[in-house]
Amino acid sequence: MSSLWNNRISISLFGESHGTAIGVVIDNLPPGESIDLEEIARFLARRAPKKDGTTTSRAELDIPQIMSGLYHNKTTGTPLCAMIMNTDTHSVDYSNLSKLARPGHADYTGALRYRGFNDVRGGGHFSGRLTAPLCFAGAVCGQILERRGIYTGAHIASIHGIKDAVFDRTNVTKEDLLAVRYKGFPVINTEQGEKMREDIQNARLGQESLGGIIECASVNVPAGIGSPMFDGLENTISQLVFGIPAVKGIEFGAGFLTGEMVGSQNNDEFYVDENGHVKTRTNNHGGILGGISSGMPITLRVAIKPTPSIARPQATVDYSAMKNEVVNIHGRHDPCIVPRAVPCVEAAVNLALLSHMLDYPNFT
Amino acid sequence: MSSLWNNRISISLFGESHGTAIGVVIDNLPPGESIDLEEIARFLARRAPKKDGTTTSRAELDIPQIMSGLYHNKTTGTPLCAMIMNTDTHSVDYSNLSKLARPGHADYTGALRYRGFNDVRGGGHFSGRLTAPLCFAGAVCGQILERRGIYTGAHIASIHGIKDAVFDRTNVTKEDLLAVRYKGFPVINTEQGEKMREDIQNARLGQESLGGIIECASVNVPAGIGSPMFDGLENTISQLVFGIPAVKGIEFGAGFLTGEMVGSQNNDEFYVDENGHVKTRTNNHGGILGGISSGMPITLRVAIKPTPSIARPQATVDYSAMKNEVVNIHGRHDPCIVPRAVPCVEAAVNLALLSHMLDYPNFT
Amino acid sequence: MSSLWNNRISISLFGESHGTAIGVVIDNLPPGESIDLEEIARFLARRAPKKDGTTTSRAELDIPQIMSGLYHNKTTGTPLCAMIMNTDTHSVDYSNLSKLARPGHADYTGALRYRGFNDVRGGGHFSGRLTAPLCFAGAVCGQILERRGIYTGAHIASIHGIKDAVFDRTNVTKEDLLAVRYKGFPVINTEQGEKMREDIQNARLGQESLGGIIECASVNVPAGIGSPMFDGLENTISQLVFGIPAVKGIEFGAGFLTGEMVGSQNNDEFYVDENGHVKTRTNNHGGILGGISSGMPITLRVAIKPTPSIARPQATVDYSAMKNEVVNIHGRHDPCIVPRAVPCVEAAVNLALLSHMLDYPNFT
Amino acid sequence: MSSLWNNRISISLFGESHGTAIGVVIDNLPPGESIDLEEIARFLARRAPKKDGTTTSRAELDIPQIMSGLYHNKTTGTPLCAMIMNTDTHSVDYSNLSKLARPGHADYTGALRYRGFNDVRGGGHFSGRLTAPLCFAGAVCGQILERRGIYTGAHIASIHGIKDAVFDRTNVTKEDLLAVRYKGFPVINTEQGEKMREDIQNARLGQESLGGIIECASVNVPAGIGSPMFDGLENTISQLVFGIPAVKGIEFGAGFLTGEMVGSQNNDEFYVDENGHVKTRTNNHGGILGGISSGMPITLRVAIKPTPSIARPQATVDYSAMKNEVVNIHGRHDPCIVPRAVPCVEAAVNLALLSHMLDYPNFT
Repeated sequence: MSSLWNNRISISLFGESHGTAIGVVIDNLPPGESIDLEEIARFLARRAPKKDGTTTSRAELDIPQIMSGLYHNKTTGTPLCAMIMNTDTHSVDYSNLSKLARPGHADYTGALRYRGFNDVRGGGHFSGRLTAPLCFAGAVCGQILERRGIYTGAHIASIHGIKDAVFDRTNVTKEDLLAVRYKGFPVINTEQGEKMREDIQNARLGQESLGGIIECASVNVPAGIGSPMFDGLENTISQLVFGIPAVKGIEFGAGFLTGEMVGSQNNDEFYVDENGHVKTRTNNHGGILGGISSGMPITLRVAIKPTPSIARPQATVDYSAMKNEVVNIHGRHDPCIVPRAVPCVEAAVNLALLSHMLDYPNFT
Repeated sequence: MSSLWNNRISISLFGESHGTAIGVVIDNLPPGESIDLEEIARFLARRAPKKDGTTTSRAELDIPQIMSGLYHNKTTGTPLCAMIMNTDTHSVDYSNLSKLARPGHADYTGALRYRGFNDVRGGGHFSGRLTAPLCFAGAVCGQILERRGIYTGAHIASIHGIKDAVFDRTNVTKEDLLAVRYKGFPVINTEQGEKMREDIQNARLGQESLGGIIECASVNVPAGIGSPMFDGLENTISQLVFGIPAVKGIEFGAGFLTGEMVGSQNNDEFYVDENGHVKTRTNNHGGILGGISSGMPITLRVAIKPTPSIARPQATVDYSAMKNEVVNIHGRHDPCIVPRAVPCVEAAVNLALLSHMLDYPNFT
Repeated sequence: MSSLWNNRISISLFGESHGTAIGVVIDNLPPGESIDLEEIARFLARRAPKKDGTTTSRAELDIPQIMSGLYHNKTTGTPLCAMIMNTDTHSVDYSNLSKLARPGHADYTGALRYRGFNDVRGGGHFSGRLTAPLCFAGAVCGQILERRGIYTGAHIASIHGIKDAVFDRTNVTKEDLLAVRYKGFPVINTEQGEKMREDIQNARLGQESLGGIIECASVNVPAGIGSPMFDGLENTISQLVFGIPAVKGIEFGAGFLTGEMVGSQNNDEFYVDENGHVKTRTNNHGGILGGISSGMPITLRVAIKPTPSIARPQATVDYSAMKNEVVNIHGRHDPCIVPRAVPCVEAAVNLALLSHMLDYPNFT
Repeated sequence: MSSLWNNRISISLFGESHGTAIGVVIDNLPPGESIDLEEIARFLARRAPKKDGTTTSRAELDIPQIMSGLYHNKTTGTPLCAMIMNTDTHSVDYSNLSKLARPGHADYTGALRYRGFNDVRGGGHFSGRLTAPLCFAGAVCGQILERRGIYTGAHIASIHGIKDAVFDRTNVTKEDLLAVRYKGFPVINTEQGEKMREDIQNARLGQESLGGIIECASVNVPAGIGSPMFDGLENTISQLVFGIPAVKGIEFGAGFLTGEMVGSQNNDEFYVDENGHVKTRTNNHGGILGGISSGMPITLRVAIKPTPSIARPQATVDYSAMKNEVVNIHGRHDPCIVPRAVPCVEAAVNLALLSHMLDYPNFT
């Protein structure tokens, strides 16, 4: 399966960028959970294009319609389907792309995989637009988790090398996460954010695009969820996060830096705090040991490549004629996808956490 | 499931470090594939402890016994089970660990997950020893892939900041991979390897341990395998790679560096080569676009944390009594797990690739 | 998962009888398959209520809208979502049912399973209405199979003990299957069909309902598809068929009669026919040996219980108050669900067959 | 996958009749469950050949060795692997079978499925011997269920038309189930059992074999476990039961008889009993409504075909030479597999029930 993720919860994503609709079926949600649709709209709005020149000018209202699984605003426990109609589609912009492989895009690989039958308009099923139903699903899971005190938040850690402040991996709180959640530009340090925005504007004007890194943290995850081997939290989260187009790397806790460390530096010593809770003095393990939560904040960082669609001519191939060509990409594109990917990372983490929480003996 | 990975091929791993045996059941292998058991032994020997002071002194012959699924040295297509008996076990060394959470280990999280019933001797099911059956499975898949020209190889990219040479992501060949495969210490640059070994020796003497990074590449993977969303090559490989204990990060192609790039730098331009094959001039995408292989080498890097077991006293908790304690870890441990993790990463990639190859229309 | 079936193809069903819509997401269909939507409408029409007094008078046009996965009427290979809006819903009829467990229905068990939060209007997710998207998915698969010569057809084998003629298990042909497919009342023997219809009319007048048996056959399935143990054709078909509400039994080939046989009676002797094909002289095995197709027609029979909704008063419990009560079911109900279940059984078999066919080495 | 069943619990079966060993890996068992290995041996002994002429004379001690997952006789929660070495194998008996398709066997279909590479000695992976690890897994699950009061028992309902008494579907008790469990010949009515045994002896002498029917019941299953659609109790049980070779049909509650009934006959009226429990006055639904348990006994019947191996000459094909031949089956075979299949059916039901019980909110 490509677009089905089947764990304790499953999500089946569908849709193409310029097809009739995109959406998701979520199966095995716990019954009786109140879902605040306005809160979900706010979550989706964080992923929607902005009017400030940092994103595509495509207008996506992206109001999800609930087709099933909610009754009196509570989950029924049977599959919840949400759908977003595609309205503002300019297919003409993409007409000459059908045989030219846009560098960095899945045009060529998708054509091979689907033997030329996939809908290529606007990227089709490979479009970043498919992260909207992913965010919907993650927002639903987030509400269920937050009711149990578990909060997940992400921010832009850097764009094109310009760095934001970082979460304190050991002591990050729910308040830290909420402080950045509804900012128009999700950074901790507003000044650094301004530099990033400027850099994005310049990139747009210069027919360029920018990559970046997202940092995400989850707090109050009870210790003991997850499993060793292939169904641990790291496995699950990474499988989902790589479902977000443009992700090229993921690390947990101190991540790649642990490769430069010695054991006594990296090991996080345990202690019992004044409330009798087991904690660690540092959190290089990112809240996960042996695939299982330790009770410390779960922290991860995700690398996002620059948007492949740039307005300058690029050498490429016409993969139907198998000859060298030059492609000029018109259409509307984000000069930097990082800000809009922030809620997508949160969504993926929410899905992974709720799925594992359903195995938690005291989940109610 | 924790220890079951269920894709087109499935593997069900079992065993504890000091239990009766460890092993694996592999289901859905293609029938009629010749398996060279001596070659598999060589693969496993790369993971086995060395006599040169860089690894644990535990002697593990690790000769896998085939219980089913092979007939006249060919796969039958029905489940292949291989088992390794545990023989050289010194449980007494671990007796005082049962209630003290070793920092960086899964003792505490495992005890919560399994409500105190898991076998903690030698790390139990969380032990690095479980990578032996993973390597067995990966070695079997590797032989099936190599018969079709697909080769995977890995090397130590760095240990504690000391760097090896790197694979040429764009042009790496089967010969490059084989050149490093059977070296006692798997580095490209022998001199740098010597520095690493020295560093490991010093770490051992100083009761320390070291982390590092592994680079892996696969060549001749046909373009068009994998899928978008949740069953792409990156999703699958990362889900498996995080099954190797001590992995804290993974990146594909230019990985985290893409976050510092602009689009025109990161985009890999396509061209048709003199043989009429589609290629890219650079390979920042690491051979994967939209979850699907592009035909370019698949490349990835994996971060390995320092072995958590170090001989110096460490502050921790007794999680049964919930009080602060000091733990002294005796026993035999690797001062650096990175060299032995090299074939494990290859194994994980082999499993992912063969599993996706089974969907390839021309697979025979 | 309840409503997700995840094999080589997956289907994720959603919806409630009186919710906004019902539908299905089908993942991993082969790309490039032409889908004839009018033919699908004909398939669905066979499941729709009839105007002849044998079914409910609820008018369901059930025109499925394609939301994704079809492009120029060909499958894209990415998820195909189809949706049917719910329009003709009379919720008021069901208002007093919310706490009275209708005998034979899932009201009580569903309330426990979903802790009282499931949408009970019209049976909610348990409604027979959910077989419409199942039929849609089965009709899509059927077209893909028929293009390869594989035909599946079913008929009413009996209603309330009145028996139709039977398929010749050994020699049934595509023509036999098509001969009954588009009959208004799907029986082989029209006279017997008339008796059944009369019986159904009488049942309706007498505030009763009737059960029956459906026989199904698939021809030209190549030998060698399926697997032993848990992923054989019988396992897969039965798992899907029990997804149709009211099914209480399934048997393959001679089925329960084999329990009364001796070996020399039951064993089907093999022979090579004049065209060099391996066949069996009888077909008690129903085309499946060891979970794998033999090349002979696949045959099965399915038991359908009488519609539980009958108009006469029935003793039951109010499961909220936990006291004995009497329930009077109003609303519109089928006095016999068997005729409408005929295409549902075909749909389930089509799904199972196409899913296994995707593993067939020569599938193109 | 063929031999992997992956639900809340997974089992991965491996082995061939004349290979090195057969066995099973069970993943996701709850931790801390005491397992009585002697009780498991008794369970397996019920499946083992008898010395009374009703079964094969092959001596199978079938002592399972525990390789992992048990520690101090309690489940660890990590994968439990059990293995049975194959010792008493007479491969010579089967040498001429490798190209002659034994009627009723999977020789021909297996050869196609596995392209001639499967191990055919003694039926290989298709052998009834593979039910030993299935029984092991079912016995483990049974002990976990019985600790919670849930008992499953089966008996021979009929052999070759000679009928045993039946369980009272509505009132069957744990005592009824235990009364038949350890009988050498598992029937309720000993006299009828004697007739069956005589019939089996005659069949053996007459180079024949006999089919039969098994009835199974589970008591004290709490109401509310299971799901609608594809993951209901009927779906799960039937998927597992068809994993037992020779099964050709399954029905729940009144099963195929419901097809001859009217609604008022078939509907089971609910009532609140003197202890305040919801029950039904009859149990035609076999304890399952909408895929979910009602709290009434779960009852099912399974059809077992006559052993295909009979000693008389049979017409067949040599599928390598594609010509008509006669096969003479020597070796040791059960004239009737039904008695030995009784614990296999129980095992399948235990697996299904425990798997669903793990979702039960109050499972501890």
